[in-house]
Amino acid sequence: MNVEAQAIEAKKASKKLMVLSTEEKNEALIHLADFLEKEYETILTANEKDLENGREKGFSEAFMDRLSLSKERVEDFAKGLREVAKLDDPTGSILSDWTLENGLQVEKVTVPLGVIGMIYEARPNVTVDATGLALKSGNAIILKGGSSAINSNQAIVDVMHKGLAETKIPSEAVQFIASTDRAATNQLFTMKEHVDVLIPRGGGKLIQAVVENATVPVLETGVGNCHIYVDKDANVEKAINILVNAKTDRPAVCNAAETLVVHKDWLERNSEALVDALQKNNISVHGDEHVMTVIPGAVLAGEEDWANEYLSTDIAVKSVDDITEAIAHIETYGTKHSEAIVTEDKKASRTFLNLVDAAALYHNASTRFTDGSALGFGAEIGISTQKLHARGPMGLPALTTIKFLMKGDGQIR
Amino acid sequence: MNVEAQAIEAKKASKKLMVLSTEEKNEALIHLADFLEKEYETILTANEKDLENGREKGFSEAFMDRLSLSKERVEDFAKGLREVAKLDDPTGSILSDWTLENGLQVEKVTVPLGVIGMIYEARPNVTVDATGLALKSGNAIILKGGSSAINSNQAIVDVMHKGLAETKIPSEAVQFIASTDRAATNQLFTMKEHVDVLIPRGGGKLIQAVVENATVPVLETGVGNCHIYVDKDANVEKAINILVNAKTDRPAVCNAAETLVVHKDWLERNSEALVDALQKNNISVHGDEHVMTVIPGAVLAGEEDWANEYLSTDIAVKSVDDITEAIAHIETYGTKHSEAIVTEDKKASRTFLNLVDAAALYHNASTRFTDGSALGFGAEIGISTQKLHARGPMGLPALTTIKFLMKGDGQIR
Repeated sequence: MNVEAQAIEAKKASKKLMVLSTEEKNEALIHLADFLEKEYETILTANEKDLENGREKGFSEAFMDRLSLSKERVEDFAKGLREVAKLDDPTGSILSDWTLENGLQVEKVTVPLGVIGMIYEARPNVTVDATGLALKSGNAIILKGGSSAINSNQAIVDVMHKGLAETKIPSEAVQFIASTDRAATNQLFTMKEHVDVLIPRGGGKLIQAVVENATVPVLETGVGNCHIYVDKDANVEKAINILVNAKTDRPAVCNAAETLVVHKDWLERNSEALVDALQKNNISVHGDEHVMTVIPGAVLAGEEDWANEYLSTDIAVKSVDDITEAIAHIETYGTKHSEAIVTEDKKASRTFLNLVDAAALYHNASTRFTDGSALGFGAEIGISTQKLHARGPMGLPALTTIKFLMKGDGQIR
Repeated sequence: MNVEAQAIEAKKASKKLMVLSTEEKNEALIHLADFLEKEYETILTANEKDLENGREKGFSEAFMDRLSLSKERVEDFAKGLREVAKLDDPTGSILSDWTLENGLQVEKVTVPLGVIGMIYEARPNVTVDATGLALKSGNAIILKGGSSAINSNQAIVDVMHKGLAETKIPSEAVQFIASTDRAATNQLFTMKEHVDVLIPRGGGKLIQAVVENATVPVLETGVGNCHIYVDKDANVEKAINILVNAKTDRPAVCNAAETLVVHKDWLERNSEALVDALQKNNISVHGDEHVMTVIPGAVLAGEEDWANEYLSTDIAVKSVDDITEAIAHIETYGTKHSEAIVTEDKKASRTFLNLVDAAALYHNASTRFTDGSALGFGAEIGISTQKLHARGPMGLPALTTIKFLMKGDGQIR
């Protein structure tokens, strides 16, 4: 089936899904969870094919680990679906209501977006997570996963389709693009009639390709070139703990720190403690010329280092004369994701939080908290780095829109 | 000055504007209002040039009327600014706040978007209205008006610049693109670094051009192919009043009705009353084959009539066998703006309001109420027909985004 036909099917299914009750959707999600657990062997068999292909292609160990499934991982998928079933239904809420002088009643209510196009890379867990969030919020979903996980994703979708057949949610509400042809994805980018939003999740190149080529509205997610700014008056212990945590806790995620911006006075006073911490944690420094004279073993940073999302234990280090220079650096190279200041100076922290333009601003805490589950949102569909519709971690409400419902008795203007 | 340099200036100014208090912004708006009234002659002199050019080009009377300014119209501009000064400041609101178990305080606050690019056609009032709404919400604005009003717009902006010079708002917060070169507008479409959102206001072609060519996020406004569906059980008087009002009150606006979808049973019973009302109000009918047999003087509608936004007293009339066929027609040809059902059958109205996908759905009322001031929002920057960020009439909150502010004491994950 071609992608347009799939999108039309998804749109039709979304109309049926839209009118289901919360209970009917929750029952379907729980049934899906049970079904995935029951059919886990089918999924693991397909996953074995992807792993074999990956080994042939010489993929990295980290990549193979993300690709690899097990009975436990499938059980985690099911657990995720059961958690989503427990969350509040984001649709059908009356956000406000009022009556005009002429008696016309106005209600502003939340409704599903319709059809979500999800474009993502390797991890097969996105196939289940995104489906759960879409269905719970009353949306159909079109899944386009990475080619390296295609057998796993196809098997997961097959199992979900079989499971949905026994529920009130039409199977057609979950569409999987099996083609690895780039043209298939590109078709998805411009089907404004059938697709209401595209959500790309993955590396910067994938996201750029979607933003540049799509006429369907895009919810841009997650490239994070996050900075820790250590101010003149930063507490040494806090600064070092936050830096090490933000850099090394999970270097490959988007809320990890990529650049340390440091006040020269602080650096001069605390270089020993800093160098010690960097060495202990195997952090490789790319520094400016001043930093080179203070941190042994640093390599000279070029323009590309300031913009780089290393996703490793490398870090760029920029020394500054004051907070104004720090903010200017962050504005130039940041991706408006998460930015932190470490300082005991309240005025400095206020300036930073007010002036820096990003989804999440931190005073004396690690950037690692920009995460739906850490903030208590339940599951997240991604972290938005754009300003419209949703910014920061996106939970279920990001998958809804509103309608004005007007009830009258013949009112005219 | 080239457009990029203007956008950079706007961005810089937006940083200063962002930290002004509500009082400082309101004082500036009131000062601007006074100043426009004081300098109205400068504006009228410039307007005379546009009118002269318009006469030479043979523009229509309606067009010339929209273009034409007077002392009273300038006073209306000033009145509009004073109204905006009275509205609540949409920025700085804490939408929610909570504390994580580890003590990290989280606040979700509203903040300005930054720089708004406004692309619009003839009416010079948009120059003032959009500027007022942008400044009140803490945003800088780049104005690109239609070439037929360029002298009026330039004069209005010059007066506003002089006025702003005496306030806390930097004059650079209002940028005017004086070039009529299409390349200048196109430059605006892709300056993601400096421009946070584009708002096109005008005809369908303008809006399409922006949506298709922009990589800057767009708030799509206003093409309205609105339908009145008269159901089998519609009250005759309500149906006819609503139809006539929605079609003729202001045919050139986006919330005017363009198509009547009518149940065949109702049409059979009430053709006389309907024909009478259509004739009295000089409404020209483009009907399907069945309608041709019922309404004298109707011309046969083609595919383009179902999709057409006439913006005149022409109307397309489609007869249907049931509500399902009516909804399918609306889904195929509607622009998701405003759709109405007239019926005394509660079940039918519920079905219509639940299933039709549009910003505003009406039961027994005219589509003309889809309007910020009619709904009590104060001024509006446009009517969004998209689903993300803002849908329907957009007031000041549509010009804001959010930030998560996290205040800690050394928290790490």
